[in-house]
Amino acid sequence: MFAADPGHVTTGPVRGSRKVYSSPEGHPDISVPFREIKLDPSAQEKPLWVYDTSGPYTETDAQIDLRQGLSEVRTGWLKKRNFQQVTPRAVKPEDNGNAQGEHLVPACPAPHAVLKGAEGQMVTQYEFARAGIITEEMIYVAHRENLGRQIAAEGAAARLQDGNSFGASVPEFVTPEFVRQEIACGRAIIPANINHPELEPVIIGRNFLVKVNANIGNSAVTSTAAQEVEKLVWAIRWGADTVMDLSTGRNIHNIRDWILRNSPTPIGTVPLYQALEKVGGDVSKLSWEVFRDTLIEQAEQGVDYFTIHAGVRLQHVPLSASRVTGIVSRGGSIMASWCLNGHRESFLYEHFEEICDIMRAYDVSFSLGDGLRPGSIADANDAAQFAELETLGELTKIAWAKGCQVMIEGPGHVPMHKIKENMDKQLKDCGEAPFYTLGPLTTDIAPGYDHITSAIGAAMIGWFGTAMLCYVTPKEHLGLPDRDDVKTGVITYRLAAHAADLAKGHPAARLRDDALSRARFSFRWEDQFNLSLDPDTACAYHDETMPREAHKTAHFCSMCGPKFCSMRISQDIKKDAERLAGLEEKSEEFRKAGGKVYIPAE
Amino acid sequence: MFAADPGHVTTGPVRGSRKVYSSPEGHPDISVPFREIKLDPSAQEKPLWVYDTSGPYTETDAQIDLRQGLSEVRTGWLKKRNFQQVTPRAVKPEDNGNAQGEHLVPACPAPHAVLKGAEGQMVTQYEFARAGIITEEMIYVAHRENLGRQIAAEGAAARLQDGNSFGASVPEFVTPEFVRQEIACGRAIIPANINHPELEPVIIGRNFLVKVNANIGNSAVTSTAAQEVEKLVWAIRWGADTVMDLSTGRNIHNIRDWILRNSPTPIGTVPLYQALEKVGGDVSKLSWEVFRDTLIEQAEQGVDYFTIHAGVRLQHVPLSASRVTGIVSRGGSIMASWCLNGHRESFLYEHFEEICDIMRAYDVSFSLGDGLRPGSIADANDAAQFAELETLGELTKIAWAKGCQVMIEGPGHVPMHKIKENMDKQLKDCGEAPFYTLGPLTTDIAPGYDHITSAIGAAMIGWFGTAMLCYVTPKEHLGLPDRDDVKTGVITYRLAAHAADLAKGHPAARLRDDALSRARFSFRWEDQFNLSLDPDTACAYHDETMPREAHKTAHFCSMCGPKFCSMRISQDIKKDAERLAGLEEKSEEFRKAGGKVYIPAE
Repeated sequence: MFAADPGHVTTGPVRGSRKVYSSPEGHPDISVPFREIKLDPSAQEKPLWVYDTSGPYTETDAQIDLRQGLSEVRTGWLKKRNFQQVTPRAVKPEDNGNAQGEHLVPACPAPHAVLKGAEGQMVTQYEFARAGIITEEMIYVAHRENLGRQIAAEGAAARLQDGNSFGASVPEFVTPEFVRQEIACGRAIIPANINHPELEPVIIGRNFLVKVNANIGNSAVTSTAAQEVEKLVWAIRWGADTVMDLSTGRNIHNIRDWILRNSPTPIGTVPLYQALEKVGGDVSKLSWEVFRDTLIEQAEQGVDYFTIHAGVRLQHVPLSASRVTGIVSRGGSIMASWCLNGHRESFLYEHFEEICDIMRAYDVSFSLGDGLRPGSIADANDAAQFAELETLGELTKIAWAKGCQVMIEGPGHVPMHKIKENMDKQLKDCGEAPFYTLGPLTTDIAPGYDHITSAIGAAMIGWFGTAMLCYVTPKEHLGLPDRDDVKTGVITYRLAAHAADLAKGHPAARLRDDALSRARFSFRWEDQFNLSLDPDTACAYHDETMPREAHKTAHFCSMCGPKFCSMRISQDIKKDAERLAGLEEKSEEFRKAGGKVYIPAE
Repeated sequence: MFAADPGHVTTGPVRGSRKVYSSPEGHPDISVPFREIKLDPSAQEKPLWVYDTSGPYTETDAQIDLRQGLSEVRTGWLKKRNFQQVTPRAVKPEDNGNAQGEHLVPACPAPHAVLKGAEGQMVTQYEFARAGIITEEMIYVAHRENLGRQIAAEGAAARLQDGNSFGASVPEFVTPEFVRQEIACGRAIIPANINHPELEPVIIGRNFLVKVNANIGNSAVTSTAAQEVEKLVWAIRWGADTVMDLSTGRNIHNIRDWILRNSPTPIGTVPLYQALEKVGGDVSKLSWEVFRDTLIEQAEQGVDYFTIHAGVRLQHVPLSASRVTGIVSRGGSIMASWCLNGHRESFLYEHFEEICDIMRAYDVSFSLGDGLRPGSIADANDAAQFAELETLGELTKIAWAKGCQVMIEGPGHVPMHKIKENMDKQLKDCGEAPFYTLGPLTTDIAPGYDHITSAIGAAMIGWFGTAMLCYVTPKEHLGLPDRDDVKTGVITYRLAAHAADLAKGHPAARLRDDALSRARFSFRWEDQFNLSLDPDTACAYHDETMPREAHKTAHFCSMCGPKFCSMRISQDIKKDAERLAGLEEKSEEFRKAGGKVYIPAE
């Protein structure tokens, strides 16, 4: 079934848009994707280009064959770096949970040469940056981040932003050299495994656009590989910048292959999950050897970043005992359990330098896991959480010394008044390494709506300096997200990230808000739908109240009807410009006279 | 059809809860509603009592007859105040939009004596408070706000809250005298028209729980009275503290009657809408006379607060001309249009003192409308908005001098970094009169998700000091909310208000978060559902993944399955308490020794 038909994934342009590519000046070999949103001719505005995460799937005539994998954006760049091609580690039955026969998902047939950096050879973006070398990935992300700014500069003369960046230094224009500097000082990363040539590079850092991660994974329930790839395609269609594959159970090696060969976005994993699978789920059997083997397995496949819970040390475990919700991170609880089992220090902590050496050889970025993140408002910013954060700070410096790229995972559940404290401590303890948070949820009382309780925290922490927000779906705490939940989660986090960019004072973020607001004010309904994060839903909601096509050109809203439309009245006011000019003078006179004429009689 | 069958409304308890009433000590005539959430015996916890807005509709054997109206909570209290009973203003055909025959919704048959305060007689809560008199309404709201605190004090010894109140003074316990003081200084209001005896009083102010308003209304589409009452009942079932009836079109007088006689919550309106209906929608025909007549009409019916857009002055109108989205408030655009029409000062501004006199005579509270609120991120905190806010500050002082209760409406669309500035200016300019904001939305790019873009702003401004949040539904900007949208809007705003209470440091807010977190940690699934703001959705989401009844007692989550459950592992850690105690000692030793034993070998 599966082998014969790898299934279909969602393709075709987002409503009202077309995919476009643009090359930075002087770099015809670098082609950066954007999405162009058409506007009605009456707008007399240029089409709006927006950042695009969706990969080739949204091209007008997308030809996708999951068996072939995506075209390799980076192969030419990587060739120049002369990495050795190595014989890949042989796939073992336990890599796929011992699935056999018809239960075994076949390997993805797309060709995949495995590269590895040699000792002493520069491999990671961090190493290149430190050496003063600007990579193609850096040029790519500069162009990707920058385009809105160029448009802004071409359009309205005035810089639009007026935010409060809390010390972040979002530049007027992003140059490749700026990117290099930010990576060199550890303030940003480009997760880009040299074995993931299909990648469209993304930069994650406080001085760039706030990014969003979506989680996928087959969990206990079985999925086919095509279903998993579709989850990826669906998540990036709506704006996920990176995707974490949190699969457990059978076939995870082969499913991961299908995902990587078909993913234009960085893929993250938690290798500990697979390592535990390999020992039958028995924590006491976990060992450095099986973990090490798993790191190499996944690094060779092309995973771009690993969550490593090396901050959960034996001495931290007792700090969690008095919590309301103990340890809620899967990885954290596995490691805590392992440490208690024999009263020994974490093998991740003890072997951290070896982990660095492995990850450096493929440029797998660290996502230092927050195994002791709070699972409730009651536990936020407690001793366990902060003790781990301090350890993550130490480990960051070790990883940098080893040449690795690093970001830091964060909570979780934090009430609004404790978010800033958390952000500030991360910046301080971890030397400004990018922060990557799950929400945080700002209250515990709304299961079923935790995409919203957490979007509040996510927008705020993004504003304060978090570089990437891990999405939360409406099913969080309750069940597994379905297709609609994934979309709701991604769109919710995109709006939170955008609210953060606006508040930080990103020079171009407001372009889209203003374009949409002008469309709204001019009753360009189609433009309003198409400029929104989710054009399909915007249009569907409009149609529920006013289904007819004519109403999409109606000069009134469905809320008020034609009689009371404030926008229409307001437009009338605006049109009456000459008269207004006169009024302005008159009202200036009133103001100068203290406006006394109109004060009601006593 | 309608007359014979007034239709049914939603009744019965919220899942897992029962309605309870409690009287403050020494006041058997005052009976305050709460909702008691049952917990599983294994929890060994008392049932949790929560604030309840739902009225008698959620009683176990609710007997509701819309023709009779609700029982009159306040009649006994009002009698003691000796208001004169007056002959009501005769209903005119234009009050119901000239609906006739079968198109005319009949008047609600519930008996309704119309009261009016005489000149010199104390009528309003503000007047009583200034005179040092504690009313039954004040005792009622003190008990209503306070109960959680009593439970908190009985339970855990330590005060839970640790918020940042930004200068608000949320007390440890709320006494009736504290309520009186807050009302006397204008910092809080109890919207309570003396012609709304069915009201269960609510206090709105910065030092009390953050409140939520939901809008209902028939708009251009016709609804029956029963449908409108059902909207009210549905909104308060999920937690709306007040409800605004924004109906336009036919039958609005009679529908309002049905709503008021069946509403336990304060009802607000925008009388300008009906006044404009009475002159056929022709702004140029609006006059003080028709407006004045409408105020009296609605005050006699029992409306608890009026939005009055008296801050839109002639001189402010030109300030809106350069905006991206002009004037987006319906009331604001109507008044701006009226002012421009003949270049004259607003009749609301010129007759403000007379408006005060009318409203005082019935204790209708002011909700001073923000007719020039920004309709886009681009227009936030601009000259037009702030000029109006300053005028609202002047008007507040006039209304107080006249003995009226006042709150102030606020935006709208404001990016995160401008929210605090807006709140601070309101507190300063309006003498701390309660702020009542619509969101604000923190970005314009997500139509279809504006309940979320605005919940971010709402939670933040609630934290900073806003007393009541006007909800936004997913259909905002696109269409009319249906039943599901209303529920989504109310729950979203309840969670935002609660997040604000937590962050402000409300002494009892965290009780519910902690109870839910404990339930989550102990795998008490039913308790987790029932403690949530929307038990039905929480349970339904859980059942989608794990439908069987047995899974509601499963000691693992649907997200991870039994093998990887972090909560289970974490529980194991907790259970192992003795061992942990030993570990704590040991790890203390490690810490003292600098944890050197575990530092990886060089």
